[in-house]
Amino acid sequence: MADGPSFCQRVVQVVFEYDTPRIVHIKNKKVGLINRLIQLGIIGYIIGWVFVYKKGYQDFGDIVSSVSTKLKGVAYPNRTDIGDLNRVWDIAGLVVPPQQRDGFFIMTNMIITPDQHQTTCAEAPWIGGNVSCTDTDTSNCPAGHVELTGNGMFTGKCANFSSEVQTCEIQGWCPVEQQDNPPSPAVLEDAKEFTILLKNTISFPLFNFTKRNILDDYDPGYLKNCRFNNSDPVDKYCPIIRLDTMVKEANQNFTALAEQGGIMGIFIVWDCNLDLHYNHCLPHYSFRRIDRTDSHFSVGYNFRYARYYRENGTDYRTLIKAYGIRFDVVVSGKAGKFNIIPLTMNIGSGLALLGVATILCDIVVLYLLKKRLFYQEKKYMMVDDDDDLRGYGLLDSTTK
Amino acid sequence: MADGPSFCQRVVQVVFEYDTPRIVHIKNKKVGLINRLIQLGIIGYIIGWVFVYKKGYQDFGDIVSSVSTKLKGVAYPNRTDIGDLNRVWDIAGLVVPPQQRDGFFIMTNMIITPDQHQTTCAEAPWIGGNVSCTDTDTSNCPAGHVELTGNGMFTGKCANFSSEVQTCEIQGWCPVEQQDNPPSPAVLEDAKEFTILLKNTISFPLFNFTKRNILDDYDPGYLKNCRFNNSDPVDKYCPIIRLDTMVKEANQNFTALAEQGGIMGIFIVWDCNLDLHYNHCLPHYSFRRIDRTDSHFSVGYNFRYARYYRENGTDYRTLIKAYGIRFDVVVSGKAGKFNIIPLTMNIGSGLALLGVATILCDIVVLYLLKKRLFYQEKKYMMVDDDDDLRGYGLLDSTTK
Amino acid sequence: MADGPSFCQRVVQVVFEYDTPRIVHIKNKKVGLINRLIQLGIIGYIIGWVFVYKKGYQDFGDIVSSVSTKLKGVAYPNRTDIGDLNRVWDIAGLVVPPQQRDGFFIMTNMIITPDQHQTTCAEAPWIGGNVSCTDTDTSNCPAGHVELTGNGMFTGKCANFSSEVQTCEIQGWCPVEQQDNPPSPAVLEDAKEFTILLKNTISFPLFNFTKRNILDDYDPGYLKNCRFNNSDPVDKYCPIIRLDTMVKEANQNFTALAEQGGIMGIFIVWDCNLDLHYNHCLPHYSFRRIDRTDSHFSVGYNFRYARYYRENGTDYRTLIKAYGIRFDVVVSGKAGKFNIIPLTMNIGSGLALLGVATILCDIVVLYLLKKRLFYQEKKYMMVDDDDDLRGYGLLDSTTK
Repeated sequence: MADGPSFCQRVVQVVFEYDTPRIVHIKNKKVGLINRLIQLGIIGYIIGWVFVYKKGYQDFGDIVSSVSTKLKGVAYPNRTDIGDLNRVWDIAGLVVPPQQRDGFFIMTNMIITPDQHQTTCAEAPWIGGNVSCTDTDTSNCPAGHVELTGNGMFTGKCANFSSEVQTCEIQGWCPVEQQDNPPSPAVLEDAKEFTILLKNTISFPLFNFTKRNILDDYDPGYLKNCRFNNSDPVDKYCPIIRLDTMVKEANQNFTALAEQGGIMGIFIVWDCNLDLHYNHCLPHYSFRRIDRTDSHFSVGYNFRYARYYRENGTDYRTLIKAYGIRFDVVVSGKAGKFNIIPLTMNIGSGLALLGVATILCDIVVLYLLKKRLFYQEKKYMMVDDDDDLRGYGLLDSTTK
Repeated sequence: MADGPSFCQRVVQVVFEYDTPRIVHIKNKKVGLINRLIQLGIIGYIIGWVFVYKKGYQDFGDIVSSVSTKLKGVAYPNRTDIGDLNRVWDIAGLVVPPQQRDGFFIMTNMIITPDQHQTTCAEAPWIGGNVSCTDTDTSNCPAGHVELTGNGMFTGKCANFSSEVQTCEIQGWCPVEQQDNPPSPAVLEDAKEFTILLKNTISFPLFNFTKRNILDDYDPGYLKNCRFNNSDPVDKYCPIIRLDTMVKEANQNFTALAEQGGIMGIFIVWDCNLDLHYNHCLPHYSFRRIDRTDSHFSVGYNFRYARYYRENGTDYRTLIKAYGIRFDVVVSGKAGKFNIIPLTMNIGSGLALLGVATILCDIVVLYLLKKRLFYQEKKYMMVDDDDDLRGYGLLDSTTK
Repeated sequence: MADGPSFCQRVVQVVFEYDTPRIVHIKNKKVGLINRLIQLGIIGYIIGWVFVYKKGYQDFGDIVSSVSTKLKGVAYPNRTDIGDLNRVWDIAGLVVPPQQRDGFFIMTNMIITPDQHQTTCAEAPWIGGNVSCTDTDTSNCPAGHVELTGNGMFTGKCANFSSEVQTCEIQGWCPVEQQDNPPSPAVLEDAKEFTILLKNTISFPLFNFTKRNILDDYDPGYLKNCRFNNSDPVDKYCPIIRLDTMVKEANQNFTALAEQGGIMGIFIVWDCNLDLHYNHCLPHYSFRRIDRTDSHFSVGYNFRYARYYRENGTDYRTLIKAYGIRFDVVVSGKAGKFNIIPLTMNIGSGLALLGVATILCDIVVLYLLKKRLFYQEKKYMMVDDDDDLRGYGLLDSTTK
């Protein structure tokens, strides 16, 4: 570093230097055409896929969403085969729990067992194990045994479940459920007329953008009375949706769904290009059944819950086996907006990709063409190290 | 492949070969300076944006979060204008449902209708349709009709809703709700004093890292009595937050929110650099109202639910229209930690990007400078294929 | 642009041209070997990490998941130390709320306070503040004061909490909770025998792929009776899981967990390679406790709720402080499938990365080897702009 220019001089020299690869410029119609076609393909890919389809000039932001739902409806089954269930039903009794963050459950069918309290009665015959017995043979009913799939603890005695069937007596919440299957058709098939008001506020924090699915430019009078309809250009943004409409859009049968229960997905997709006007950012609704029905094991959706009360110091409860439709609201989406950084990044990657055209053409030119030896000689400057002295002298005078 | 060296010899030759592009090294102050400036810009971008801002030397892992909340508070409205609602309220009666996975709802205002049972009464006049009638004109009340937005099935008769208003008689849960609007101000405006204990355990499974928002180095005595305060360096990590504090941080008015209800977002962000000490990974809280208020359609948050009981074999219920604040907890975050793979990947991309400096300078040198023809001649070695024989002979002796 | 060829001619010329860098081809054993080793490393990295490990030839799609759970079990504590709680418990009374979207809470321990109504009684001594008093000294009990962590409004009098302890009299839901700690061991330790049927339907919308965790090729008879067992190759896909199994897999103690409550995570991971057969896409279950236990502040999981009823026009309630286990189901996963676009993208990036080998070798060849001056001369064609005229004339005849 000491001989020759000083360090400072060297730095100054480096600043004013510029290196660029020496290029072999070949005029050949065949190779030139192949080269341009490959370049065209790569540029087409970059413009078409990266910039147009994937919007490579945009920065993308994730969605933050909040959903609330409000159900409306009242129904009267008007049937004589369902006993006490033949009464007026409204939302306050059908939505369990009464509010949920991203969806709701509506009961459409049920088995109700009122006035249960802790006492003894006959076990239901359809629980997992064998609980049949006679007054003299109680071998299936060991006293003190608790059957996990049953309703209580065996007392060791036998009792009349019905006038024809005898089963082990249990201690527990009695009487036990008297039916194994819910009414058919469903008690609340009329729930298909019920409507849901879907309120979804979304924001893209990266772009400080907020919007809700109840569009600002819609008339409140229209909003109060509209019904969602996916095939109508205006009504497809109406936030009030009949349950029946959702089930039909999912190609399901409300009658079957109401009887055994099921899980429906309400999908709201916000795919927004924020380079366009605010009004172009719109929700798209779709509906799909998201539990599987093509199985013979545990189909439908039901659960048990109880309403507890006390009379004269004794705990009573009404046991409800609720069949119904759980609606899960799933909001997704993303927003894109012009940004200089992804633009330059993608242009840079595109330029790098153009180098691949050269690699592919080199393969053609150097290995496949008839004149490959001629081109190899043009492209390559051979330096043989075993011959360096001669090469040194020779090359020194001919190439600079 | 048979003539010349054998396949094995050729493989050995290839192993000991090395190709490097021939470079035109130009000493020109103007071009050199442009070149170095562009390179400096690219290196600056790589270091500043990729490495410092985007931490390109780190691997990033997603967050897994679990949230639970615990509310505390008791309130006594001490007002004479709200009848039976003037009693002591505690958490067990205000949080519906009593536990939820990522948030909670607290009732702050309500319309309560006790002792409903299935019988007949006058429909409320403010339901959607026209239900006014007189003893002689019941044309609005066709017997057996069920109005979807109403409370039951018309009996065909007319009844007194109040001493002044007559409406269609219905069969259903009677008496119907007697008010259309909730008390103003809200019954439980004092709920602003209530506190929530927020427990949030997060983990970054990729890095086997777990932490919770109740910081380990905080004194249990302090934790029991602290209150969250975003402008205090210590209290901003206190997990006990007054409802009022959250509403104020969101620039909302508790009085208005409590009366009509609404949805608040509690955002917890964990942005952790795990190359630093464990104690630097801290939660950041922010609060925002996430339902929209700038609309005249369906503002606020309310729902109806009922408490069922039986007396002497008859089902009774207390209907509650609950107005209140739903708090949604949204946890997000990511963790970064040094990793050799993203580091090398980003260095590689950076080197590739440096090639863009050459492309840009080439444009300057070859097309814009006065001496462009001179530089073109230096950079390009022309091979004209229409003239290959001559070129072959000529070039063979002059370039190697 | 006017002199020389016309614009059209120039365009035609450009189409048939082809540029390729001129390469210095060096035969040197040392440098060649270094070059090939670096190339080998890069190719190894691309094949091993990018293609084999990260499956760079696949397109990846996100998961959409729906979960439902069904609990089964009945328990009888059979103890004399828990009074009224010694009765038969079933699911309808233990799961609060009765259905949730992605998990469930099961009560395993409790403090029950029946027959509360709005009246006056002695405050509990263990609430935050000091509420002790005597008949003559009620200075801790200012009339009308509502203590936020207490149970009601002070009346200003003193009352007997027990035969030994006197506390301020309050107005509120009375009597107040009589215990501060739940029964030990937990009332429903037997809940460990309960089972959960986990139903999880997933889909990868990008690939139009749907599957559920109840495998189609499993026999319904087997599915009804199986129990999940992570160490059995068949039973590890059984969707029925004992609560005890989950707690044990998480290395927790059911007895301790049941007494104070806690939060358990049920993690289902679907990592699917859709290039393989449908049957290879399988769920993997794991279980982890996700609340922290290594703290002395607010450990466990509990909440209060109430069951309301009316007798003779008075509101009564049963207050329940529920301790139990909240199970959060977290489904994650991704699916990959062969796609030509990521394949070409990754091959392109790989080729670009190979250029780094040249950069590294150049450093060795041009700056580290003894013959570096010789190689520098070969690689660089010097163009000195201060000497351009001479260079022009000279180089014109020697390099083309």
